[in-house]
Amino acid sequence: MSSTTNAPEEKISKEAAKKEAAKLEKLHRKQEKEEESARKIASLLSLDDESFSENENYGGDVTLTELNSPADHKWREATEGKKWTDVGDLVEEMVGLEVLIRGRLETYRHKSSKLGFLMLRQSGFKVQCVATQSEETKVSVNMIKFLKQLSSESFVNVIGVVLLPKDPVTASTQQVEIQVRKAYCVNNALPQLPLIVENAARSEADVKAGKAGADRDTHLNYRVIDLRTPANQAIFRIEMQVKKAFREFLESKGFIEIDTPKLIAGSSEGGSAVFRLDYKGQPACLAQSPQLHKQMAILGDFRRVFEIIIHLCEFVGLDVEMEIQTHYSEIMDLVDELFVFIFTKLNERCNKELEAVRKQYPFVPLKFLPKTLRLTFAEGIQMLKDAGVEINPLGDLNTESERKLGQLVLEKYNTEFYMLHRYPTAVRPFYTMPSGDDSRYSNSFDAFIRGEEIISGAQRVHIPEFLEERAGEFFGTYDWYGSPPHGGFGAGLERVVMLFCALNNIRKTSLFPRDPQRLAP
Amino acid sequence: MSSTTNAPEEKISKEAAKKEAAKLEKLHRKQEKEEESARKIASLLSLDDESFSENENYGGDVTLTELNSPADHKWREATEGKKWTDVGDLVEEMVGLEVLIRGRLETYRHKSSKLGFLMLRQSGFKVQCVATQSEETKVSVNMIKFLKQLSSESFVNVIGVVLLPKDPVTASTQQVEIQVRKAYCVNNALPQLPLIVENAARSEADVKAGKAGADRDTHLNYRVIDLRTPANQAIFRIEMQVKKAFREFLESKGFIEIDTPKLIAGSSEGGSAVFRLDYKGQPACLAQSPQLHKQMAILGDFRRVFEIIIHLCEFVGLDVEMEIQTHYSEIMDLVDELFVFIFTKLNERCNKELEAVRKQYPFVPLKFLPKTLRLTFAEGIQMLKDAGVEINPLGDLNTESERKLGQLVLEKYNTEFYMLHRYPTAVRPFYTMPSGDDSRYSNSFDAFIRGEEIISGAQRVHIPEFLEERAGEFFGTYDWYGSPPHGGFGAGLERVVMLFCALNNIRKTSLFPRDPQRLAP
Repeated sequence: MSSTTNAPEEKISKEAAKKEAAKLEKLHRKQEKEEESARKIASLLSLDDESFSENENYGGDVTLTELNSPADHKWREATEGKKWTDVGDLVEEMVGLEVLIRGRLETYRHKSSKLGFLMLRQSGFKVQCVATQSEETKVSVNMIKFLKQLSSESFVNVIGVVLLPKDPVTASTQQVEIQVRKAYCVNNALPQLPLIVENAARSEADVKAGKAGADRDTHLNYRVIDLRTPANQAIFRIEMQVKKAFREFLESKGFIEIDTPKLIAGSSEGGSAVFRLDYKGQPACLAQSPQLHKQMAILGDFRRVFEIIIHLCEFVGLDVEMEIQTHYSEIMDLVDELFVFIFTKLNERCNKELEAVRKQYPFVPLKFLPKTLRLTFAEGIQMLKDAGVEINPLGDLNTESERKLGQLVLEKYNTEFYMLHRYPTAVRPFYTMPSGDDSRYSNSFDAFIRGEEIISGAQRVHIPEFLEERAGEFFGTYDWYGSPPHGGFGAGLERVVMLFCALNNIRKTSLFPRDPQRLAP
Repeated sequence: MSSTTNAPEEKISKEAAKKEAAKLEKLHRKQEKEEESARKIASLLSLDDESFSENENYGGDVTLTELNSPADHKWREATEGKKWTDVGDLVEEMVGLEVLIRGRLETYRHKSSKLGFLMLRQSGFKVQCVATQSEETKVSVNMIKFLKQLSSESFVNVIGVVLLPKDPVTASTQQVEIQVRKAYCVNNALPQLPLIVENAARSEADVKAGKAGADRDTHLNYRVIDLRTPANQAIFRIEMQVKKAFREFLESKGFIEIDTPKLIAGSSEGGSAVFRLDYKGQPACLAQSPQLHKQMAILGDFRRVFEIIIHLCEFVGLDVEMEIQTHYSEIMDLVDELFVFIFTKLNERCNKELEAVRKQYPFVPLKFLPKTLRLTFAEGIQMLKDAGVEINPLGDLNTESERKLGQLVLEKYNTEFYMLHRYPTAVRPFYTMPSGDDSRYSNSFDAFIRGEEIISGAQRVHIPEFLEERAGEFFGTYDWYGSPPHGGFGAGLERVVMLFCALNNIRKTSLFPRDPQRLAP
């Protein structure tokens, strides 16, 4: 093989026939696509294909089905015994070493027939790979042509040498670049994509400044592409850490993680008509919350339980239920410690991820106190009143007054996370325990991040007679057989992360969001 | 208050009027119940009740709503500043100390008007509490009468002194007993329960020997009582440890925990008609597995993902999907390491729990190798053939042949956990990658515990053209936009624990089981 063999179109004078070249190029690409497709099928059927053997340093598609497809064979020989390096792990200390990496081709810049630049992206990290035709690199002009025809978002395996670039590469997340020696396409993407990752990753400010973005539906319709942006790669790692810290803390306090049924007989707890279905001839519905079953787990003597589940309408619930020893403030103590733990761990463990989110969606870190502020509902009402906002003391707060109160609390107490408790009984569910000293109020609480509710909790009525009296027939179908005093709370994972990062839309923190219009992807 | 004041019925001669006494006792109980109920309502309404003030060392029901109900007041004063001790933590080193404990009254044995024994149970641990009337203990005959009338399964707070019993108490799980000083009923259970915990905890051998048990439906109908048995308390702690070890291991390998939608548009992946519903006017159905969405997460560049979810028909799925670098054996490597890790951790961390299960359901610990045995499907077929069992080499194994092969593997390799791979393509789902060297076989595997399948996994077809060819129209609705080679597997949490503990029914490892007949509780 010769690295100076030029393909036919390289012989046409560029000045004289730019348009013809473009046409030819187009045709050529089409032919290449067709050949590519043929090779793909061929390799799937394990047929030999001469075109692969002309150069051992590149090719596609690797099928990974077994060892005997020609593309597989070449790259397997090339990578035999080599270890994989993650793009995010490429550092200065590796300069001079040969590495084997894999990533998506984010962009290809064609400098000349002898020089091309590939930006490879893996899990949001990016590195520039330089393909230079030379005797030393064993990169041929044909190999550069092969790289040039790869579609964006194709998966590419690259073997190359780690170098320090002369000038920092702005689009890259790594300090080093890779001098390409071998490159194999693992799977070529479609030549035209409905969403470009670069555009999906654009900040609002950049879009306002005229750079190409994408509208929300495009983001969500092509979620598998959208998820590849650094911010999205970060958001779902942050969510994992919330779940992890949530479990870690609760386990240290003796909680047991349970799984409760999602299908229940008859109509749902709330009595609403949504999500009815037929279960092998019986009328059934989908549980809208694990409320009743987590209470039943307490009755089943597990004492302190939690569950992380997908609720209907598809938010991920962080649900907790526990025995109370003496007072409902025990639940608020837990919420206090638990969420301070979660926020602290996020700041400790998710530095890179929070930075990636901030880059696309700028935000100021959440202000919270080591010991969470607790106000009674009456105190909250008073603060609002003092600020000129009149609220019914036995009614509920609306979103606007919650935000206003959040502002007042921030000004007065310098925290964006606090709890409000002893809500009016009238605005809480029937299974909420009224306060013993004044039954117009209840042993209940909400917690707020940046002025928005994220947690709702309460002591539950555990005395059957009283529960029946409050619940009417519904709870009559359940027998309690001796219940300890208990209570609990629920929070939405997506809301926690959305508000922690001050994101403006809940869809940003849901992997595959659902809404009244959206059931796909 | 005097500890020698006797109630009226104590003055009747026991020899002369046993029947009358019984009647009177019955009446008295009824009256007590009524009074109890009245007190309950009274305390809920925060009214004062003179009957509470006659003795400060006992009473009921504690409402825990606030500080001003009489029952609350008494016991709050008595417990002020005291720490709670868990029944399971009561040990010999505490002898002589006064402790505050809470538990359910499993049984009450009435020795005389001056001596009663309470067996208190908390999270499956049991301790005997002895109430002896004396000046020293400040226990009155009235207090013993109060204890006598408590229903089984009532919640009781006890303050008492830790002692070593003269003779070991067989029903107790602790070495020590408690000399009662004060006792407050937190919540009285119904006087007649549909299931007795003692019976629910009976081993098969005991039931065969004539002791009272309960049939399966009674267990499941009254699950909140059934869950209180030591074996059930243990089983769901074991399940939590499986989930914990599963996550712990996968996180250490760079996996991300995700949540995928449960509502999807149109009909489900499998195309089956079950669980259709109306979603705000759109036809929708419940996802029967996270298969497609976990693959989409790989396409969204998360590289390695897992999810623990409740599937329909309500088993808890342990689902994993990952990029493949070179060969599908990478998935089997993960299954090998992951499950050896889980089994090892269960044996390390769940000693007490496994013992509690074994006590009701005897079993021999699972035999497994440090490096999991891997056989090809063809090798498995050959082993069966050598043992005289003929199987179609391109068909599937039935339950019987799986069990037989499990036996042969145990005899030959001394393991009850192994993997069988390269299943015939015809018996695997359409998205399974056929083997490159022989498309009659596929890059797929199952894993078995004690001769029963617990894991099914495979490399997925990641090439759109080939997938469309295999899938027909279904996958046509999903665009792939460049997929890395990937694969994964799913296991059922309940099956893993059921087979690890050699239990005979999957309902035993489901918190609130569902089956074609059962949608409640």
